[in-house]
Formats: sequence, structure tokens, C-alpha cells
Amino acid sequence: MKKRAVVLLSGGLDSAVTLFYAIRAGYACYALTVLYGQRHRKEVALARRLAGLAGAHFETVRLPFFWKGSSLVDRRQKLPRDRTVRQIAAGGVPSSYVPARNTVLLSIGVAYAEAIGARRVFIGAHEEDASGYPDCRRPYLETFNDVVRLGTKAGGAGKLAVSFPLIGKKKSRIITLGAKLGVPFAHTWSCYAGGKRPCMRCDSCVLRAKGFREAGLPDPLVRRDRCTA
Amino acid sequence: MKKRAVVLLSGGLDSAVTLFYAIRAGYACYALTVLYGQRHRKEVALARRLAGLAGAHFETVRLPFFWKGSSLVDRRQKLPRDRTVRQIAAGGVPSSYVPARNTVLLSIGVAYAEAIGARRVFIGAHEEDASGYPDCRRPYLETFNDVVRLGTKAGGAGKLAVSFPLIGKKKSRIITLGAKLGVPFAHTWSCYAGGKRPCMRCDSCVLRAKGFREAGLPDPLVRRDRCTA
Repeated sequence: MKKRAVVLLSGGLDSAVTLFYAIRAGYACYALTVLYGQRHRKEVALARRLAGLAGAHFETVRLPFFWKGSSLVDRRQKLPRDRTVRQIAAGGVPSSYVPARNTVLLSIGVAYAEAIGARRVFIGAHEEDASGYPDCRRPYLETFNDVVRLGTKAGGAGKLAVSFPLIGKKKSRIITLGAKLGVPFAHTWSCYAGGKRPCMRCDSCVLRAKGFREAGLPDPLVRRDRCTA
Repeated sequence: MKKRAVVLLSGGLDSAVTLFYAIRAGYACYALTVLYGQRHRKEVALARRLAGLAGAHFETVRLPFFWKGSSLVDRRQKLPRDRTVRQIAAGGVPSSYVPARNTVLLSIGVAYAEAIGARRVFIGAHEEDASGYPDCRRPYLETFNDVVRLGTKAGGAGKLAVSFPLIGKKKSRIITLGAKLGVPFAHTWSCYAGGKRPCMRCDSCVLRAKGFREAGLPDPLVRRDRCTA
């Protein structure tokens, strides 16, 4: 029987690449999408489809939550946008920060994994040069693994840990890896605004565009003007 | 304005003492009860009443959860009972262990705290000589605080941490402390079985009875035979 893994899947590009990475590594994958009052549901529908395309089980957990402080879940707050990559990098923790988000997601992922006997919890976090999120950094994730080792039965027995294969990679390298793994980028969504098409102005769109540009690949979500010559 | 604290409140004795401890320490307390398919709801009603008696705000979060492995949430499994204190101490992780429970509870508590600007998350965990739960030990809790420091905005600024004031105390000392703080023990519930009266046979009843005996105090939940002499 294949070893099992839980993969935290948001419907974004990074978690999609992580899911295909875990499948390629030989795991039977249980994709887990946590609903916590995000501004848009588009990602959830995409997560379900991505899991289907990858051949993974799909599970959702809905948190009736109180993350009122973040622009990612509170429509009254402005999303960070119209910033250059350099401004994003220098800006500290952005307004789209959600209190303790990855800690909550990882905890639920670890609980699910231990309950079904999975050996790994995969998360697509990465320390992009531009990232202002404290819960996307390597020391945080390594320390979270200490918590798993000390605080769970399976972790204490060396049978459960969190994996973060993208942590040191730049967006362009993640995109190159995803292309090799056959990730259907057309079914991923990065834009914070959740409109019909990416807004191309929010931090997330800016970083995705830079990634595709540096990878030398087209983003299937972005309509390019047809050559009329 | 008073400093705020979130207190994880189960309706059990330890979390009740912790709530009254935090109130006495001068915090405006936000009691948080997490519902995760426990075998009985009695504790939740008691938690609400305890919060009211303590003068704390009360909030619940319901997790639609998959903790199928534990006898605490799965009625098909046998609860640990009819064991002596020594057998409980030597028995390793009991069947009432819930995968990554305190990690999930603390994560949600920390997210709630950061969202409302609270400085502390209180948990009533303690390393009783008899405890087989890995997520009730001091090294685990200290490491979780490293996660809070590294993975949250408020924790990184030194404005948020988990407090575990009962960690080194024996049950009898917790009961003595609770008596001093005026904890209404009649409104706390420890029994795993959740009947009308404590079963006096499960691990939790056995440890509570030992605590009251060693503290030299009567447990108001236990009916003593009247003297008929």
C-alpha cells in the first residue's frame, strides 16, 4: 500500500505544484482545503478540480472564523496593490496577513494526517525574496516540526512530519518545476481579488507575473493581445 | 483598558482553574470552547456557565472534524477505565488521546488572540505524574511558543504568547489553588463518560478523586453516603 500524505491545497499556484510534487514522490495524497471566510470561493472550486486532475482525495474543513483583521477575509479593508516587487519586499507584513494562518492550517493538517495514518503534511510555503509573511519562513516551519515531534503520538514515533519542498525556491523556479510535473496552471488562481480575470495589480498578481516572466513561460490565465500585424 | 487574554475552556476542572487564575491576574478574558465531536456536550454547557460566573466573554468554534481515532470522540471505542493511578502512569499514550488536539486548540486560540489584540492564550495543561498525553508537557508548550514567536506578527513583536500556569502542578495543588480562587467546582466536569453523575471509573475520574483526596477537600460532584448512625 502506498504511503499517505496530506497536502494543504488552496487552489493557488504554489500548493498546486506541491500537490503534483507529492504525487510524483509516490504518495497517496489527501488534499485538504480549509475554508476560513476568504474573500472569494473561486480558489475552492479550483482546488477541487486540481485534486481531481492529480488523482488525489479531496476534503474540506470550514472554520467559522474570526479573522477580521486581514484584508484577505475582510471586504472593508483594502487589498495590497499597485506595489512594485521592491516595494512589496520592503513593506514588512502586508495587510493580507491572516493571524496565525499557517499555524492553524498545519495543525488541522497534522491532526487529519495522524487520524488517517499519513506520514507527511505538505505545504507550499516559500521564502520568496519578497515575502512579508512570518509563517512562510524556514525557521518557523522547522520549529513547527519540533511541535509535531513533541506534541503528537505519530510525530514522537518518527512517523509524521511537515514537508515544505518549495521553501527555498523563487517563484520562477516553482513555475519551472510545476511545468515539468505537468501542473495545469490554467486551473490555479493567485489573484487576491477573485474577479473573472486576474487583476494584475495586487501583490500576488505582481509576484506571479514576475515568476512567469523569469521562467520564460506564458501564464495561461493572462490574455495576451493577439498579433494583428 | 485591561489587557486581554484568550483562555481555552473545556468545562473541565483544570481549564476552570486557569480561567479564574487569568481573571485574578487582571486580564479581560475571552473564554474559547472548541467543539470537535466530543462524546458529550455537558462540558460545553458548563463552560458557558463557568465563563458567565467568572465574568468572561464566551466564544465557541465548531470543528467539523475527523478525529475518528480517539475513544474520546468515537463511541465505538472503549474509554480507558478501571485503572489504578499507577497503571495510568505506566500505560503510555491512552486511547483517549486525540490526534494533535492541543496543537489545534492552541493554534485557533492564538489566531483568535491575534485578531482581537489579546496578549496571552491560557491553557490548563499540566504534566501530572500520570499523564500520557504528549501535548501536555512543558517542552511541547515551550516549543509551541517558539512557533508563535516565529510565525505570527504579534508574537514576533513580543506581544503574544501562550501561558500554562498549571504545568508543573499536581492535581491536588491545582484543586487547592482553585479553592483559593473561588472556582465553583460543582460546575466543572472531568468524567470522560458524560453521564448524569461521574462514573468514578474512567482515568479522568480516578485522577480527580485522587486530587481532591490529597487536597483534603470534598468534591461537590460526588455524593457521599449520609451518616445514618
